[in-house]
Amino acid sequence: MHQKIKVGIVGGTGYTGVELLRLLALHPEVVLHAITSRQEAGMPVAQIFPNLRGQVDLIFSSPDSTALTECDIVFFATPHGVAMSQARTLLEAGVKIIDLAADFRLQDTAVFEQWYKIPHTCPDILQESTYGLVEINREKISHSRVIGNPGCYPTTVILGLAPVLEKGLIELNSIIADCKSGVSGAGRKAEVGTLFSETSDNIKAYGVAGHRHHPEIVAQLSQLANSPVSLLFVPHLVPMIRGMLSTLYVKIKPEAVDIDFQRLYEERYANEPFIDVMPAGSLPETRSVRASNQLRIAVHRPQGGDTLVIVVVQDNLVKGAAGQAIQNMNVMFGLPESTGLQQIAVLP
Amino acid sequence: MHQKIKVGIVGGTGYTGVELLRLLALHPEVVLHAITSRQEAGMPVAQIFPNLRGQVDLIFSSPDSTALTECDIVFFATPHGVAMSQARTLLEAGVKIIDLAADFRLQDTAVFEQWYKIPHTCPDILQESTYGLVEINREKISHSRVIGNPGCYPTTVILGLAPVLEKGLIELNSIIADCKSGVSGAGRKAEVGTLFSETSDNIKAYGVAGHRHHPEIVAQLSQLANSPVSLLFVPHLVPMIRGMLSTLYVKIKPEAVDIDFQRLYEERYANEPFIDVMPAGSLPETRSVRASNQLRIAVHRPQGGDTLVIVVVQDNLVKGAAGQAIQNMNVMFGLPESTGLQQIAVLP
Amino acid sequence: MHQKIKVGIVGGTGYTGVELLRLLALHPEVVLHAITSRQEAGMPVAQIFPNLRGQVDLIFSSPDSTALTECDIVFFATPHGVAMSQARTLLEAGVKIIDLAADFRLQDTAVFEQWYKIPHTCPDILQESTYGLVEINREKISHSRVIGNPGCYPTTVILGLAPVLEKGLIELNSIIADCKSGVSGAGRKAEVGTLFSETSDNIKAYGVAGHRHHPEIVAQLSQLANSPVSLLFVPHLVPMIRGMLSTLYVKIKPEAVDIDFQRLYEERYANEPFIDVMPAGSLPETRSVRASNQLRIAVHRPQGGDTLVIVVVQDNLVKGAAGQAIQNMNVMFGLPESTGLQQIAVLP
Amino acid sequence: MHQKIKVGIVGGTGYTGVELLRLLALHPEVVLHAITSRQEAGMPVAQIFPNLRGQVDLIFSSPDSTALTECDIVFFATPHGVAMSQARTLLEAGVKIIDLAADFRLQDTAVFEQWYKIPHTCPDILQESTYGLVEINREKISHSRVIGNPGCYPTTVILGLAPVLEKGLIELNSIIADCKSGVSGAGRKAEVGTLFSETSDNIKAYGVAGHRHHPEIVAQLSQLANSPVSLLFVPHLVPMIRGMLSTLYVKIKPEAVDIDFQRLYEERYANEPFIDVMPAGSLPETRSVRASNQLRIAVHRPQGGDTLVIVVVQDNLVKGAAGQAIQNMNVMFGLPESTGLQQIAVLP
Repeated sequence: MHQKIKVGIVGGTGYTGVELLRLLALHPEVVLHAITSRQEAGMPVAQIFPNLRGQVDLIFSSPDSTALTECDIVFFATPHGVAMSQARTLLEAGVKIIDLAADFRLQDTAVFEQWYKIPHTCPDILQESTYGLVEINREKISHSRVIGNPGCYPTTVILGLAPVLEKGLIELNSIIADCKSGVSGAGRKAEVGTLFSETSDNIKAYGVAGHRHHPEIVAQLSQLANSPVSLLFVPHLVPMIRGMLSTLYVKIKPEAVDIDFQRLYEERYANEPFIDVMPAGSLPETRSVRASNQLRIAVHRPQGGDTLVIVVVQDNLVKGAAGQAIQNMNVMFGLPESTGLQQIAVLP
Repeated sequence: MHQKIKVGIVGGTGYTGVELLRLLALHPEVVLHAITSRQEAGMPVAQIFPNLRGQVDLIFSSPDSTALTECDIVFFATPHGVAMSQARTLLEAGVKIIDLAADFRLQDTAVFEQWYKIPHTCPDILQESTYGLVEINREKISHSRVIGNPGCYPTTVILGLAPVLEKGLIELNSIIADCKSGVSGAGRKAEVGTLFSETSDNIKAYGVAGHRHHPEIVAQLSQLANSPVSLLFVPHLVPMIRGMLSTLYVKIKPEAVDIDFQRLYEERYANEPFIDVMPAGSLPETRSVRASNQLRIAVHRPQGGDTLVIVVVQDNLVKGAAGQAIQNMNVMFGLPESTGLQQIAVLP
Repeated sequence: MHQKIKVGIVGGTGYTGVELLRLLALHPEVVLHAITSRQEAGMPVAQIFPNLRGQVDLIFSSPDSTALTECDIVFFATPHGVAMSQARTLLEAGVKIIDLAADFRLQDTAVFEQWYKIPHTCPDILQESTYGLVEINREKISHSRVIGNPGCYPTTVILGLAPVLEKGLIELNSIIADCKSGVSGAGRKAEVGTLFSETSDNIKAYGVAGHRHHPEIVAQLSQLANSPVSLLFVPHLVPMIRGMLSTLYVKIKPEAVDIDFQRLYEERYANEPFIDVMPAGSLPETRSVRASNQLRIAVHRPQGGDTLVIVVVQDNLVKGAAGQAIQNMNVMFGLPESTGLQQIAVLP
Repeated sequence: MHQKIKVGIVGGTGYTGVELLRLLALHPEVVLHAITSRQEAGMPVAQIFPNLRGQVDLIFSSPDSTALTECDIVFFATPHGVAMSQARTLLEAGVKIIDLAADFRLQDTAVFEQWYKIPHTCPDILQESTYGLVEINREKISHSRVIGNPGCYPTTVILGLAPVLEKGLIELNSIIADCKSGVSGAGRKAEVGTLFSETSDNIKAYGVAGHRHHPEIVAQLSQLANSPVSLLFVPHLVPMIRGMLSTLYVKIKPEAVDIDFQRLYEERYANEPFIDVMPAGSLPETRSVRASNQLRIAVHRPQGGDTLVIVVVQDNLVKGAAGQAIQNMNVMFGLPESTGLQQIAVLP
């Protein structure tokens, strides 16, 4: 009989942590082996996250415990900088790594250090790591032992633009991404700015002058285009718990005006289990993917003009974080990609 | 190899309909055979409920189709009165029935007619039907072919009070149920009163003078107490999609003041897969059961006085409707009770 | 002693109606004289809108009553088509008119008929009417007797772009307006699409293929630019009751790259009581204008590039509807423009 | 010409602080003289609260500044303990005081110290202070120089029960207050428990074992009843920014069963500008008082039984805090009680 995958989680007290637990607890090929938290060591996980009562009986262990090195794979649901501090030890113990923070997302360490304000302490491991967007890097992920799990915004923008960038159909100097995120994207930190009374019944733009996901998106888009792209990225905070909708505006190249973009997208993603190209004329809403690993895309060309409007939705905590991480794990361990990720979105 | 259960749904365009579909589509022992809607006949279900895209390829058929009689069981997710109009035909074809409306909830047809303003057209079928609260009527349900699936409010109040009523520990003339429901409980009907702009950032009480669930609760409580009970029931509408929290106030009988009520509840529900008696001192919140079939109960006795405060939470669309209906189906067909119902609540 | 303005409202059962009442009831120069509703004739207004209890004792009268012709001014808070059917009679009786629907917004009747699917029945009155955006047409409004009160989206886009269009500083063929609206913008109609359970915890784009406000915005922008403009307009529905945020993307003309746009906006709106140009680097949020007639603008130029990002917020029911209508009335009657409109936004 | 009242605010960075500013900035008899905050000294108030931009140009001054002693009255919108530390100095300088925290709410210092865990440092000032519920203590308030502004929950429960307690019509040992509050009641502190993602789409009970408002309510109810009362008080947290709804359950004394309670309430509050006894059969909702100083009460007696159900709504930040404080100020300075408090509730 085959062995299940022994999984560890570092830093399970945030929203990506509890989402990993929700999904992994029912994953048929996984055994939850260890979860660590310096602050909550000794406390049952289900005491912090009451949805796990009766389903997950793990107890937070100290980050210094040896339990992690006994795992087959460890997920880092931690702030930036933690994964790289523990990566070498784990790799040497034969443990694979998926970091849900930014330590292995940006190949250029100078850019990393500019945006995250800490030095990158293991550039060699960074170099062997893979950007964990399965729909782009499936083959490479299957051979990787270190994955940088993409940011939530980048996932929507990159998957929304890959089909036209790969084929060189759009102008690279006029890409606009107007993105809208639910509040859980800001994490489970005690901050005035994300209190209910500050964010409910309200919308605002933020980070117009600069956002950490900007260099990450630009790097990936440029690689897909095989040429540098220029991106205007404006994130907005929307009063909903989960969900992300990105409205992408791109100029079609003169030589591409006769392309059937609907068909292009359908063909590009025909075999992707988690990408749904909606029928022509339709528009996706975030609740259609709530709590699921689906990402839906609609392609519009208003008045047949030279601008494409591409609308992408995902659940920022699933396809934008924990679900995508598990999708990566499935690929890394040779499992069917949808294993444990077939939940249907919760609507209403 | 064993046969899967062929399932039909009548009236799948409301919230209990889509919730049945979400849960049944992944139920390992079920085949979705037919779904009917007079208004939407011919339309793919996933066109109305985009969360089902790629997961459910059923098309609404006409209510007059013969597909329902080919099923092993039919769920009625319809307004009151529909199930009883089709029950006889289905039963004669050997099809079992679970009605999620009120046609088979009230044994007293006079009371039914007073509250629902229509005559009861099949009192004989009503008489053989069972009130589908598995934790109370498990044995009887396993032999039934017609189930009246409980109302959402009644589920919380009855399960919240069963342990003390069965043992005769509380005064029967001073039971208060102060209940709070999310807006989805009002259904997917076009009405001004449940518009976002009318219900968001707002709370109100309603139905203080009388509510259809009042006689249903009273009948069940009286049966559990083996004596008539008097109930004050005040429902409130709360700005959340799903979720129901009932705060129950009951007077302890003088002879019962020494009872350990925490232990009583824990023992009563020790073997129930969907009932979680929380540890002493804790308080449940609705998000801890969101999109799951769990119901959580906390028992409090403020200042050691003579009043118990029992707080019950559930997802009104799952344990309060579709999930409970599937739990009934599992029992009726001899399946393990949790089959297809092990989803972990979505938090945050 | 001077006379107060006698005000009538036609169709006061929607959200713009109740908002007019909230503001006019405390307007020091106004007497509420009549409010009509065919459906609610005979019912006290405060019975439908409980916030008005004790403050407004008007009773809905029949639309056929003569009370309207006794007024100095009548506001139409009705669906499209009603104002033009009653305009001539009122004007002949010496009554001024402000229509909050679209009857007097589009000078081109062919465009009107294409989008609103009804013939325009009084093109002569349309011709003498004024588009009621005070910050653009103040002088003309002061002499008008018929005002087409702007749509909510158009108010944000036109005021957000007027400074750069008037000076000819941006490319006219690449204007993008990515707009986000609260649900009250859809009105107080019983519709499934705006139920709480359909819109809460959700965001979606809509009307990408075409929206009635598109021709209205284009006509006004073209007039400001004195040249035809091309606009990409994508509205989104956001789970909040009130509030609208428009994110505008425009290309700076090569000859204008050295302009100080922050200063340009500050100077253009220096004397406008209701327009707040925020300090450089700041970003407005809709709650900062909730229930007030303020409109706030922030001007950004990310990375000093050739694209301006202009963010505009307003309360769609106040500056986007009822407040703006009263601002127009103040101008028409020679009152200080802020009379009755000095409410401070409600935050939190 | 008469002098306006010079007002100071201590601790204006919370929700009661900004609400005081919103209301006082437009109060016709007030001059805002000083606002202090240790943390924000030197910063313009409008920078923290953007709704005040263009309306309030005050700058936070240090708490040690002498500006407060120049005021006629100082409001304390601070945590418990601050007002009593500064009260003596201010009183000696001839400044009146209204504390919106608990320092002057509980006459029994032992009870104060038990619940607030700090010693009461000025029992003599406490003794001369008045509990600032105008509808109960109007006369006494008019002669007071120190006011303990009531808590939000106590305001609803006390005003909801005063008519029947004053007349001795209900049993004093079986009062239940099931209260529901919006999240702003928890203040503007950075805490995980009141994040949007923790409180949205969720309801929970809290403080069942004990809540600071319990002794405050009990003390006031006992005084009204002229006899000790026993109260069961269960607060709930509801996903809305503002608003509080209290559902009160009381047993009618046998000798009072023939009383017309609707009439009793109407007569008791006939001359109260801020108390609205709703017509028989109606039920109030919190949005009907949003951002206004109104408190609405409905009196129900289901099935003509022996239990009254009294439903009370208010805006917790207005009648439950800042508005009530200003109402107290108006009374203390001999102004018409509604001065500056006539805002109509914002609906929708």
